[in-house]
This record gives sequence, C-alpha cells and structure tokens, in this order.
Amino acid sequence: MGYRYSVFLQNVGSCFDRYCPAYSEPFSVQELFDRAASIEHLSGVDIVLTPEIAEQWDEVKAHSERTGLAIVSLAVDLFTQSKFKQGSLSSIDAEIRSQAIGATKQAMDLASEANCGMVTIWPGQDGYDSLFQADYIRERDWFAAGVKEACLYRPDIDIVLEYKLKEPRTHSYVSTVGVALLMVNEIGAENCGIALDYGHALLGYENPAESVAMLKKYGNKLKHVHINDNYRHWDDDMIVGTVHTLEFLEFYYWLSRTEYKGWITVDQFPYRENGRDAVNESVQWLLAFERVMDRADPERIRDLIASKDAVGASRFMRKLLFDQ
Amino acid sequence: MGYRYSVFLQNVGSCFDRYCPAYSEPFSVQELFDRAASIEHLSGVDIVLTPEIAEQWDEVKAHSERTGLAIVSLAVDLFTQSKFKQGSLSSIDAEIRSQAIGATKQAMDLASEANCGMVTIWPGQDGYDSLFQADYIRERDWFAAGVKEACLYRPDIDIVLEYKLKEPRTHSYVSTVGVALLMVNEIGAENCGIALDYGHALLGYENPAESVAMLKKYGNKLKHVHINDNYRHWDDDMIVGTVHTLEFLEFYYWLSRTEYKGWITVDQFPYRENGRDAVNESVQWLLAFERVMDRADPERIRDLIASKDAVGASRFMRKLLFDQ
Amino acid sequence: MGYRYSVFLQNVGSCFDRYCPAYSEPFSVQELFDRAASIEHLSGVDIVLTPEIAEQWDEVKAHSERTGLAIVSLAVDLFTQSKFKQGSLSSIDAEIRSQAIGATKQAMDLASEANCGMVTIWPGQDGYDSLFQADYIRERDWFAAGVKEACLYRPDIDIVLEYKLKEPRTHSYVSTVGVALLMVNEIGAENCGIALDYGHALLGYENPAESVAMLKKYGNKLKHVHINDNYRHWDDDMIVGTVHTLEFLEFYYWLSRTEYKGWITVDQFPYRENGRDAVNESVQWLLAFERVMDRADPERIRDLIASKDAVGASRFMRKLLFDQ
Amino acid sequence: MGYRYSVFLQNVGSCFDRYCPAYSEPFSVQELFDRAASIEHLSGVDIVLTPEIAEQWDEVKAHSERTGLAIVSLAVDLFTQSKFKQGSLSSIDAEIRSQAIGATKQAMDLASEANCGMVTIWPGQDGYDSLFQADYIRERDWFAAGVKEACLYRPDIDIVLEYKLKEPRTHSYVSTVGVALLMVNEIGAENCGIALDYGHALLGYENPAESVAMLKKYGNKLKHVHINDNYRHWDDDMIVGTVHTLEFLEFYYWLSRTEYKGWITVDQFPYRENGRDAVNESVQWLLAFERVMDRADPERIRDLIASKDAVGASRFMRKLLFDQ
Repeated sequence: MGYRYSVFLQNVGSCFDRYCPAYSEPFSVQELFDRAASIEHLSGVDIVLTPEIAEQWDEVKAHSERTGLAIVSLAVDLFTQSKFKQGSLSSIDAEIRSQAIGATKQAMDLASEANCGMVTIWPGQDGYDSLFQADYIRERDWFAAGVKEACLYRPDIDIVLEYKLKEPRTHSYVSTVGVALLMVNEIGAENCGIALDYGHALLGYENPAESVAMLKKYGNKLKHVHINDNYRHWDDDMIVGTVHTLEFLEFYYWLSRTEYKGWITVDQFPYRENGRDAVNESVQWLLAFERVMDRADPERIRDLIASKDAVGASRFMRKLLFDQ
Repeated sequence: MGYRYSVFLQNVGSCFDRYCPAYSEPFSVQELFDRAASIEHLSGVDIVLTPEIAEQWDEVKAHSERTGLAIVSLAVDLFTQSKFKQGSLSSIDAEIRSQAIGATKQAMDLASEANCGMVTIWPGQDGYDSLFQADYIRERDWFAAGVKEACLYRPDIDIVLEYKLKEPRTHSYVSTVGVALLMVNEIGAENCGIALDYGHALLGYENPAESVAMLKKYGNKLKHVHINDNYRHWDDDMIVGTVHTLEFLEFYYWLSRTEYKGWITVDQFPYRENGRDAVNESVQWLLAFERVMDRADPERIRDLIASKDAVGASRFMRKLLFDQ
Repeated sequence: MGYRYSVFLQNVGSCFDRYCPAYSEPFSVQELFDRAASIEHLSGVDIVLTPEIAEQWDEVKAHSERTGLAIVSLAVDLFTQSKFKQGSLSSIDAEIRSQAIGATKQAMDLASEANCGMVTIWPGQDGYDSLFQADYIRERDWFAAGVKEACLYRPDIDIVLEYKLKEPRTHSYVSTVGVALLMVNEIGAENCGIALDYGHALLGYENPAESVAMLKKYGNKLKHVHINDNYRHWDDDMIVGTVHTLEFLEFYYWLSRTEYKGWITVDQFPYRENGRDAVNESVQWLLAFERVMDRADPERIRDLIASKDAVGASRFMRKLLFDQ
Repeated sequence: MGYRYSVFLQNVGSCFDRYCPAYSEPFSVQELFDRAASIEHLSGVDIVLTPEIAEQWDEVKAHSERTGLAIVSLAVDLFTQSKFKQGSLSSIDAEIRSQAIGATKQAMDLASEANCGMVTIWPGQDGYDSLFQADYIRERDWFAAGVKEACLYRPDIDIVLEYKLKEPRTHSYVSTVGVALLMVNEIGAENCGIALDYGHALLGYENPAESVAMLKKYGNKLKHVHINDNYRHWDDDMIVGTVHTLEFLEFYYWLSRTEYKGWITVDQFPYRENGRDAVNESVQWLLAFERVMDRADPERIRDLIASKDAVGASRFMRKLLFDQ
C-alpha cells in the first residue's frame, strides 16, 4: 500500500504521568530529530507546538531539513499550559478563547513556513469533569466558532480535529467519530477535517475500521491518522501491535478501500521504554500488517464483507494470519 | 415540571435472558394492562408490536380505552424474530429489507388507528459482531433509505430512532447520539427524530444530560425518552434511581432547559422482581427527582453552569440533595 | 503441546437471548452429538445437566459411546431454572439451597456413571443486582458450605468453580480469579478446583495468562479451561481468535509452563451462525495457536519474561507471528 | 457514626498529569498544613514520603503538632521516582528491591517517631504493561517476601497494602480485593492489612460495600480507607459525592456493620480546582452521608438485606434519600 509514516517528535523522548514527573532524562530537539531519523521507514514528524518548541522554531526547521524528516503536522498546544485548564477554544473566558484562536493561527503560519499543510487541534482540556459544571451548548458553539475563524484565516492550511472520549477531562467535547463529524459539518469549511487516533477510537468502543468508513460516508473527512495500541478501556498509547492484531488488518483494508492518501503518525507514550526503540517497534508492526494486507485480494474481501458471514470472516482472518 | 409517564407494556410482565427462558409465568394482554393501570401517575404505555401483539390488536386497543392508558408509541419488532437476525432495514437481503420496511409501515398504520403519533425503531439486530463481517457503508445506506421510505409513507406519524452502542450485536449501526444525529440529518425527513434511552446513553459513556443538549443543538431532534438505570458498563435495565441520583437531576434540568414536551417511558427488565412493583418504584423515583428539581431555581443553575466551577457544582448538588 | 479439546454440547445447537427467543431451530441430542462428532480434533463434550438432558440421560450416554466423544464434565444446572433466580447454593431459602446441593450431588453421581471425573459449578444466579439487596457475608458462607458438602459427598469426583464478574446478575459472588481462590481455599477440599473461562477472565480485566499463573501460585487450583473470545467489556462468547491473537499465545505458554494437563472446552454462543461451523472455527484457531507456540523455545521465553522488557516482548511477538 | 477524617497532605496543593506539568503554583509544606487545617472536621493527614518530604521531615512534624493534625499514615514513595519505574518490591533487580524494602523500613521508623502507627504501600509501578513482559509468579513472590521482611522489621507498625486494578501500569500486581487478600494471607503477618481505596474498588467493578464485607470475612483485614469518587471506568479521583450517592450510604452501613474503627482519608486529584476547597467539599459530603445513615435503623437494614428483595431495597433507598 505504501503509506507514509511519521512520529510525534516528542514520542522518542521522555514521558511523565500524574505520579512520576520524569520517567527518564530529557532530550534536546537535535537529539529527538536524530533519534527519529534513526528509525527506518519514517519520513516525517508531527510536532506539538509547545512554548519550548516555538522558541526553538528555527532550530526545528533546520533539523527537519538536515534529517530529511518532513514536518507532517503542527499540533497547536491547547493542553499543556495551565491557562487552558478549563478549556481553550470553548473557554467561558473570551480572552482565553482569543488566545486559543491566536495560537491556532500562529501554528498555521508556522506550518505554512515549514511546507507543512496541516495543523492538528486536539482539544484535550475542552470538556468538563463534574455534573452541573458546564453549559454544553454554549461552550460547543464557542468551540465551533473558534475553529471556523481559524479555518477562514488561512484556507491553504488544513485544520484537523482529533476526537477522544475523555482524558484529561472526564468528558471531552469532541468525543467520538459521530460528534466530530457533526462539528466539522457544522463548521462547514473546506479545509476542516478529522484526525482519527486509533487508540482514541478503541477507547470509545469504536471499531477503527468502521470509523474510517463513517468518515468516508459522512463527507470524506479523514485527513490524518494517529496510531498506537491499548487495552480498549483507556488510551494506554502502547506500541502498535502489542495488543491488537486483526483490527489493524481490517483498518488497513478500509484505509485502502476509502482511498486514504494521508500520513500515518505513530503517537505513543513509552513511559518506561527507550522511546526510539518503542517507536521503531511500532513501525515494524505497521509494515508487517501492510505486507499481510498486500497479499490479500481486495475483491475477495469485498465479496466476503458483502456476505455478512462471521464464520467466513473467521476463516479468512485465520488464513490471512497463519496461511493455514 | 409535570412530565407524562408511560411504560413498555411488556415490562410489567415476565422476562427471559440467554440462560433462563422464563423467569416467571406469562401474563395476558389484559393482565398487563391491568398491572400498568394499577401504577399511579402512569398515563400511557409503549408497545412492542410483536406478531403476538399484532394478532391481538383489537384487544390491545380495547384495553387501552378501558384503562385510559394512551398508546404512546408502537415499537416495530425488528429484533425478536430470527428472520431479522443479521439485520432488518440494513439487511444484505433485499427481501428482508422489504419486510422490515413493510413492518414499519404497518406499525405506522396501526399507530394512526390508535391515536398514537409515534413509531419507535430500535434496530437491535442491525450491526455486526465480527471484524471483516460487514460493509459498513453499504449497510448504513440501506438502513437510511429504509427509514426514509417509511418517513415519506406517512408524514403524519413520527418515526424515532433509538440508539444503542451494542447488544444484541457487539456493534450496532445506530450506536451513539452523534451517529444517530448524523443518520437523522442524512434522512432529512421532518417526521424523523431520536429516542434517547437513558441507559443506552450511559452505556456509551455519554452523560445523558449532555446528550439532551446535543440533540437540541444539532437540529432539535429529541422526540422520545426511555428511562431506566444501570452500572454504566451494560444496559442492565434496572429500576430508575437504584444506581444513579445526581445524573437524573441534571437530566431533568436539561429536559426542561431544552423545552422537551414529550413522554418519559419506563423501559426496564425486572428479571427477578414483580414487574409491576419494579415499574412502580421507577415512577416513584422519577417523581421524587422532579420534585427536587422543582425546588431548584433555573436561573441559578444557568449562572452556575456558566461559571465552569466544579466546587460550586458540588456544593449546589449537595444542597439540592440534603438541604445542608 | 497436544491439548485435548471438548465443546459444550449445546453450543453446536441453537441460541436465544433476552430479545429473541430462538435464533434457529432446535436440535435433538442425537443431532448435537453428530454435529460435535463431525468436528475434527474434538474428543469430548461438556454437558449442562438441564432437566431435559437429565431425562434423556441414557440416550446421552449412548451417543457419547457411539461417537467416541468422552463426557469431560457435567455442569450442574443452577442457572436455567427460575427457582434459582435469586441464588442456588447461596439462596436465602434453605429449601432452595438444599435443592441446589442435591442437584450437585446428582450431577456427581451421573458423572461417575459416565466415566466423567468432573462436575462444573457455574453459579450464575448467585449474586445480586441492587445495593442493599444482599448480605454479602452470610450468602457467601452458605455458598461455601454447600460446595463443601458436595465435595465431601464424593471425593472421587472433582468439583470446579467457574468464576465470572457478572451476568446474569449485575454482581456475581464468585467474581474473579482472586475471589475464586479465596473461596476454594476456604472450602479446603482436595477435590475442589477452579475452571477458568477465558472470556470471563477478559471481562474482569484479567490477563488470562496471568490468571493461569496465579492459579498455580495460590494452590495449583486450575482444573478446567473454557475458551471463547470477546471484546473485553462483555462475555460475548465469540469464535476463539476472532478478536484476540497474542493473548492466546501467552495463554498457551503459561498453560504449558504451569503444567496444565486438563481439557480445553470451547464455550461459545453462536447466536446467528451455524453452531457446528462456528465451533469448528474455534478449534482451527486453537490448533493454529498451538502450532505457533510449538515453534517457540520455552527457555527463550523464560529469559524474555525475566528481563521485564516491553520492547523485547514486542519484537518477540512480532517474529512469532510474522517470522519477520 | 463519628468517623475520623484525614486527607492526603499533597491533595490540598497542586496537581499535574501526563499532559500538563503543573495545573497551578506549588505550595510549601507550611501552606499545605495550613490549608488542610482550615478544613473543619479534618483531624489528620496522610503523607506520601517523597524525597522532598523526607528532607523536610522535622518541619513536617512541627506543622503536624502546630496544627493538631495527626499523621495518620505515611505512604512509602514507591511510585514517583524513576528508579522504581519497572517495579519496586517486585523488581527483577535485587538492588532495587533492596532499596524498596529500605524505603519501607525508613517509613516505618519515621512513622513511629511521629506517633503514626501505619505505613501505606501502594505499589503503583509493580505490575506490567505488555504481554510476555513479566514472570507473574516470580515477581509476586519477590513482592510478598519484601512486604513480609518489612512487617517483621517492626511489628509495632502496621503495613497496609492498597490495591488498584491498573495505572500507572496497565496491569497491577495487587489488583483487586481478592488478590490483595490472597497476598496478605500469604504474607501472614499480624501487622499486615489492606487499605481500601473507594475509587480503586469502583474501577475494578467492585461494589465497595461488598469489598468491606469480604475484607471482614476473609481475615478481618481492612485497616485503612481512602475515599474519592469516579465514573467507574477510571480512577478519576474526584470530589466525594459528585458522582455516586447510594453507594456511599451502603458503604457506611458495611463499615459500621463490620466494626471498622480506622480513619477515612480523602484522596483526590483536584487538577483544575482549588485543592483546599475541593477537599472541603468531600468532607461535607461524607458528613452528610453519615448523617443520613445515622437516621437509619441498622436492624431494619439487617432484615432488608436478609430478604433479597430489590424492590424493597429500592423503596428503602428512596425513603432514605427523600423521606418520601
């Protein structure tokens, strides 16, 4: 199939969580690029535009050029700074909303400058935790208006919304594939699409392959893919392929069937592992899954799924995996 | 607030599950009506139009008149008959789809005859279980086309789609509030709306109050409410109020705020209990919740939820419940 | 590894659930045996001793002999009859408890007569649904006493307790591997052990391989294995291998490592499928998993898991599956 | 009932998570004590013995005396330092295990010095993430041996094990009430007990009230209680009472019924709230629940739960809450 693979630059570095403030030593931007570049088959990076990255922006561009790793997407940082803790584009505070829109526009400008056509919005802090804490309609209205303003600001840059059921809020506003599609359709801008994070889809009891199909059916809105693995109950952000197998195969089928031409970006949290090696493993699994699906005949799959036959599906998957 | 309450007629009878084919003795239609009528504050019944009920249709109407229990909605039976086991309106078999559409039209005709303006479609068998078993786009297209045909058949009768994440299929097509809204908007008929089942919303990690708000925001599509309780991981269909408390209070607030004027229908499975008594309990809880919210000042709640203050929300809920 | 495989006799027949009372036509005992016998590599059947089966007991034994399918275990029917709806061995009614103990003893007698050394107790109705509904200590005491009485009745027959987090009750008394071990240790009979149902373990967020290890560590209590697959949130009872892959491989490793010598019994609910074909698929997957693990070097796995290396584990699993 | 309430000292301060390294400004030890002391009805604090706290130990003791807040328990820090990232008492590295045991003994010594009789072990990093990553038996053996060594070191100080299904590992070794009891029974020391964290119990689909009963039944091992609230799918560590209501009432009943005499310690993560105010809310809710249960007649509850009557339980809870 020949997909292009990327990784979130910060993934090959160090992680923290709510208990341990640093699982390993920090890495410089140069080291992060070197580590990513050492992974075969990666041809790009996605970058979260934190204040630290913004300060080293020239360096970032230089390392991108030096290593040949394209900047696939810039993710606006609407989630690491405490000022956005009660929401960014959906904040009840007009000044905070304005800062969130400003940060998005700045990301679009920087993206353009780096030959990167896509800005990712993952609105992690936009949601709520407690009952009776939020006005679900008004805050969503603000959110949509903010995204629209950014979309209109630069029609040459795509904005992709990344949905997730929860975390860090107990309830996110852009929660599921259905809700994300409603929002993007409401925004109604040509350059507004959706980023499907494989683990987020699983977390919401979606079958990611089906989510790809729905993104096709309701407006052809899939513009970016994040990939990782988890145990279905939480966004564990593990090495791709260490939990699921068959789901990834069906996912590749539907990516191909819906003619997805975008990037696939590894997005994981290797808390206790060497990040570079953990990402390398994900890439190896992805290539292995691609190879398996390259052996499969798409016409035969089309017939199979037209038959609504679970026993036939079982036999097909078994032979795909074990050739027996 | 003065909501009108109904119950699924079969709920005051006997239940079975996948292990036990009969938890108690069966009841006649007359007994079911008598049992429902014995519950104070109920003024209607919803009825699943199984073949058995269809055969006794005249009797059903007579008992409705005799007891004064209005027929609030007829639910098309697309889920108890094995012919629909691989899907009804989304079946890969054109003949089955045609039967499903026919059954829906028949329900609309009978509804009209019984002064009932609403037909409920709960497409429990429309979905899939296994990976590589289904064509997620084509089957959804068929489903939408079938609903649309029925909507156009009789614009005087509303059709409400009831969403549910899963069960009896491991994956349903009309799965979440977001997906249901996409479908209803795709169908685009004035008389097509959505039934929110409280337990289904919880099962999909929705906050039912927020789902009510979203149904308002994206087209004002809430036309019916089913109510019950569960432990959030499964559609346990328990007595209302025996698990959740505060969620029901916020739910009533948003029903009122969005000016919902429809019915609230108890829909539970009292496997091991006397169904009449279990439903009576649900009604008592619902009235108690209503009374609590009648004491609350909607302006104050509007201010509270405009403040995004979890501590304030906690204090408000505590005082609402304990007056202290 | 050469495990012996069995199937629950009723699995190759017809299913029902709480909506649909019959997904397909019923099968006679003779047909069920013929269907099971037509599946290669099956050498036994497990049988739920419902009243219907008990009535045809001579026929059952004759078909077992005719087909050469050994009776691996008899499961006492403490869950299909409404009299046990509020609990069997843990019932608050002494007469019901006595009937449950009697049924268990009868199953032991019939087992002995059929050269079957094992009786399975799955106490599906023993638990509760509502808060403030049950005395958690007293009912567990009754349960343990009942099992103990049965164990002492015939030390020549093993009794295995099958744990499950929930369903049909929202909360079961024998819920998890930890709780089952506490109970079996409390009962303290040599002939009392535990049946691990793979899907039940997954449902309780157990890693089944780890549960096997724990059953070894805390008294070597694993005496029977039921196998099927699910999406981790519910006991979907699907074809083995149609959801999980790697988990089954690690499961076989720990079965072998802990020297499990018992049977592996397919236990699934093929609601919409031909039961015979669905079970056949499960067996084919199981054999494929066994073959993969037969290629793996147990010493190398021992070293791997001694290293606490998630990247190494990923590489190992990838090579195991794809040889690349 | 008159329970004594405490709070984790760090809870009234600032939080971080895996995205945002600081949701608010840090607080000094003095400020933390002052904030805790400003909450009525709190008479103690629990303290995580991080390296920072250990360095300020004299100050801690002085503030405890000054404010009159007893030190209820010291929690050994086996989870914030990266050296324990692959496990502490269960580490495959003997040197790390030795450090973990040393830290536990140090905590016992400091506890004794501060008139605190209890050390809490929450082994958050002891577990695994990936399949084929761990030797489930050997690591548990090491864990149990380490706890035992600490227990024998100072029989005058209790050690309580706090169980949790997962997080930060995807799978914890001390996972559920059943597994914790197996471990504590295996360790077999008089001064070894269990800390029940209300939210952890909910996370594992336990009914916390039932867990209290089981801790009584299997050895009377409940020695400490942590309290907070969540949406049942994750350890959200929210304000007590903002999600659940009835569960807390039943919990108090079983605490009283099993004659629990220990402390109840608020343990929450008020990421976006003023920590002091959020903890104050939890305490207010707890007192309100106590008051409700003080009105209830324990004999009547004993009769109710002896009757296995879900409808009666519903009526009881409804009247308890609404007096109507």
